[in-house]
Amino acid sequence: MNDREQCGVNVVFGLVGSKWKPTILWRLAEGDRRFAELRRSIAGISEKVLADQLRELVRDDLVNREAAPGFPLRVDYRLTARGNELNSLLDPLAEWGDRVRVDRLAQLG
Amino acid sequence: MNDREQCGVNVVFGLVGSKWKPTILWRLAEGDRRFAELRRSIAGISEKVLADQLRELVRDDLVNREAAPGFPLRVDYRLTARGNELNSLLDPLAEWGDRVRVDRLAQLG
Repeated sequence: MNDREQCGVNVVFGLVGSKWKPTILWRLAEGDRRFAELRRSIAGISEKVLADQLRELVRDDLVNREAAPGFPLRVDYRLTARGNELNSLLDPLAEWGDRVRVDRLAQLG
Repeated sequence: MNDREQCGVNVVFGLVGSKWKPTILWRLAEGDRRFAELRRSIAGISEKVLADQLRELVRDDLVNREAAPGFPLRVDYRLTARGNELNSLLDPLAEWGDRVRVDRLAQLG
């Protein structure tokens, strides 16, 4: 690994280095979701924040937004191939970060 | 994986979600370094920024700062066990992020 490759970490931070994006990816990895379903499945996220985050994820080719023809309008969000890859990469980080947090709490207690 | 585990990703972002920290970890994974050595090995980092980043990494138990007794003062920085673990976790992200960047450049070209 050289400097150029190490900078790849910053590409990842740029794509999902925000509070909600990892959780959004993880929810969509469970299955396609409509906006309202997705929002209900993520405790504490506002409609505006979810819409903004989804727009960025679509722009970055991590999530697809698919509007089905017909009425009423139905829009599904699903992970792209790239989004799936990235979500899988985050799994070990989630587990490790969670262990670190548990250790911290144990030190405090 | 549940919500709590997914939040572990945010623990990781909090620890190394900055421009320089992944590179600092990677340099120290190659071997212990003195401050001046470390700075020379990271193109474009200023003394102040490196000092600030190291202070945070030491505070977060990712890097050890060891002052050898005697004169002249010699201070070595090295990864802690936790820092080593985290650095290894970042490797696949670095590779993936680098591929994404290469793809983007190809699309532009």
